[in-house]
Amino acid sequence: MGMKMVRYGIIGIGNMGSAHAKALFNGEVKNSTLTCVCDCDKNRIDWARGQFGDKISYYADYREMLSSSNLDVCLIATPHYQHTKMAIDAFDRGLHVLTEKPAGVDTKSVELMDKKALESGKSFGIMFNQRTSNIFSALKSFVDLGILGDIKRFNWIISNWYRTQAYYESSGWRASWNGEGGGVLLNQAPHNLDIWQWIMGMPSSLTAFCHEGLFHDVDVEDDATIYAEYSNGATATFITSTGEYPGSNRLEISGTYGKAIAENGVLKLFLLKKDERKICFNSKESMPCEEVTEIVLNLKDERDGHILIMENFSDHILNGTKLIAPGEEGIKSLGISNAAYLSSWKRSVVDLPVDEDEFLFYLNRKKASEVSGKLAKKSKGAINDMGNYSRRWSVQW
Amino acid sequence: MGMKMVRYGIIGIGNMGSAHAKALFNGEVKNSTLTCVCDCDKNRIDWARGQFGDKISYYADYREMLSSSNLDVCLIATPHYQHTKMAIDAFDRGLHVLTEKPAGVDTKSVELMDKKALESGKSFGIMFNQRTSNIFSALKSFVDLGILGDIKRFNWIISNWYRTQAYYESSGWRASWNGEGGGVLLNQAPHNLDIWQWIMGMPSSLTAFCHEGLFHDVDVEDDATIYAEYSNGATATFITSTGEYPGSNRLEISGTYGKAIAENGVLKLFLLKKDERKICFNSKESMPCEEVTEIVLNLKDERDGHILIMENFSDHILNGTKLIAPGEEGIKSLGISNAAYLSSWKRSVVDLPVDEDEFLFYLNRKKASEVSGKLAKKSKGAINDMGNYSRRWSVQW
Repeated sequence: MGMKMVRYGIIGIGNMGSAHAKALFNGEVKNSTLTCVCDCDKNRIDWARGQFGDKISYYADYREMLSSSNLDVCLIATPHYQHTKMAIDAFDRGLHVLTEKPAGVDTKSVELMDKKALESGKSFGIMFNQRTSNIFSALKSFVDLGILGDIKRFNWIISNWYRTQAYYESSGWRASWNGEGGGVLLNQAPHNLDIWQWIMGMPSSLTAFCHEGLFHDVDVEDDATIYAEYSNGATATFITSTGEYPGSNRLEISGTYGKAIAENGVLKLFLLKKDERKICFNSKESMPCEEVTEIVLNLKDERDGHILIMENFSDHILNGTKLIAPGEEGIKSLGISNAAYLSSWKRSVVDLPVDEDEFLFYLNRKKASEVSGKLAKKSKGAINDMGNYSRRWSVQW
Repeated sequence: MGMKMVRYGIIGIGNMGSAHAKALFNGEVKNSTLTCVCDCDKNRIDWARGQFGDKISYYADYREMLSSSNLDVCLIATPHYQHTKMAIDAFDRGLHVLTEKPAGVDTKSVELMDKKALESGKSFGIMFNQRTSNIFSALKSFVDLGILGDIKRFNWIISNWYRTQAYYESSGWRASWNGEGGGVLLNQAPHNLDIWQWIMGMPSSLTAFCHEGLFHDVDVEDDATIYAEYSNGATATFITSTGEYPGSNRLEISGTYGKAIAENGVLKLFLLKKDERKICFNSKESMPCEEVTEIVLNLKDERDGHILIMENFSDHILNGTKLIAPGEEGIKSLGISNAAYLSSWKRSVVDLPVDEDEFLFYLNRKKASEVSGKLAKKSKGAINDMGNYSRRWSVQW
């Protein structure tokens, strides 16, 4: 051993923060330890004291914690709107920052985080735990290596983010434009939007159809379909929902050398021996039958992705290991969801990168028109199942 | 036997017509026989004489054939633009009409066919051979019976309509707005658009993204994505292409009692024991795990769907058996493709039923701007593989 331990302080010990806290406290994250937590909800601090006793420090004011010199890393797990301010405050105090997704609610404020991170020279990471999935990493490698040829289409049905009404009522900030700043595209699907852009790069334009309160009594969208185009002519569709049960998780990428399908925890490759573009223009047959090699890859994930992201973050701080999910990349998936909202509100195609001021204009209008505190009143502030990683936060097939 | 044989005369003995002719001539279609064929291409008539000798009659002018009293049924297998006029001429001569899909190019002219069919009292059918697929029939029954509950989403990736450049150059009328009147949505995908509306009914609006000449040197679209909405809030996506290899055929329907997925020739049902709407609003859990019953149905198709459609059409004439694919329903899938073109050209959402005059205005503009005879010049007028049903005209998984 003898190696320095990276000390984590967590702001926000709700669903996610409490699970991170427990994993760190229990020594599940190599070279990392929990030294302090902060929450403005006294019930949650009581819960934490019950779990961690006097082995860590407790704070109600996050600024106090950040100034305490009890921590190296500030891990932010608060409502989305607060991420930007807290990250900037942490960088200002010379701390490394690992933030929950989404990086923020709008790309304009996330740019401030990125700028601050760069200026401070500190490490900045984002909790895109699904990037640790072997299936997604393999897919990214195959696309990067050109195994599928030039990509023609990307198609993801990721409708297994099922949530009940009780979920939306579990915290007052959830499911409103003022409290959360978005629905399934901002809360659940950022993982998938990130994997999408990680593998495919950013589209040049998109059209989205977001349905607000389609399946739940909420103000934000709980169902969305995005159609996107790339500058090289490739297209993409992305379908997500918190209202379908059982949902699906099926990702298909088609290119000039075949296709890949990830579904049911299995990655299948269907590979041509020849370039389809050559078949198309050289074949004398109308509907040729080409030889296709099918490869089935069973790539299991052995450890929880959240823990792997924290481990990688500590490893990056200690040894300069490359970050799996650099914080600066959080802006990309957010750019897609911001564009999707703008497209849906304007009912028109939107070019990327999104016009940040136009997005903020529409978002602010949305917030102003919202019946204030609709769900806040209903909030049950439930503290159940805290401290554990839900199976449903990992990649579900 | 002693039963009366229904006598078929076929206009157009190209790819499809020649296969129908051979099946009828060879006695593969119960209670049905081939008595005459018509084609303006002398090479094709020569081919037919080589096949059928003096057992049937041959015509260069379809009106002559229709007036010959040699036939009961006029089977139309000509370029799409000619269907309407020929069908009307046949009804006027007291003949039954079975037409290849699409019924026509625009819904306005197809309405004339439907009107004429009704006035004549004769039988009118359309060659939607994929309606005979046991998987699609089963899916339709399950939806009709409410086994999936209220439908939330319909999602079809049907990208296995692969065609080479040689295909598009096989006839001069193909792949241009003037010659064919459309691309993959009008030529290949009408089967799937029909199955879609057959199972789900007609959407209330749609937005489409049609890409013209994306994968081939053609004027029409060879790639399309349609997003549609239903008046009850359900959504649909439909993705098709002639440029992907190997393509996919995956149909998913999700409802309040579970989902159905048809893929790889297998129909899978994933059924809930409870109404998801009740789970959503009554469960105290955020992300409940509900019991799902999985049923796998292997439903093979034993006979060719084209033959079954002809057999059913004859049976309808002789015994009043219900038509599997009434001609009047041909207008529905055409209504979807017309709306998809209009949406793509206008770059906006289009309500259904489509505004027929607006569609024609845009179509005519498209035709006027087209470089005339681009492909006609290239046409190889190939007569290869005639007289056989391509495996690829049946449902492909």
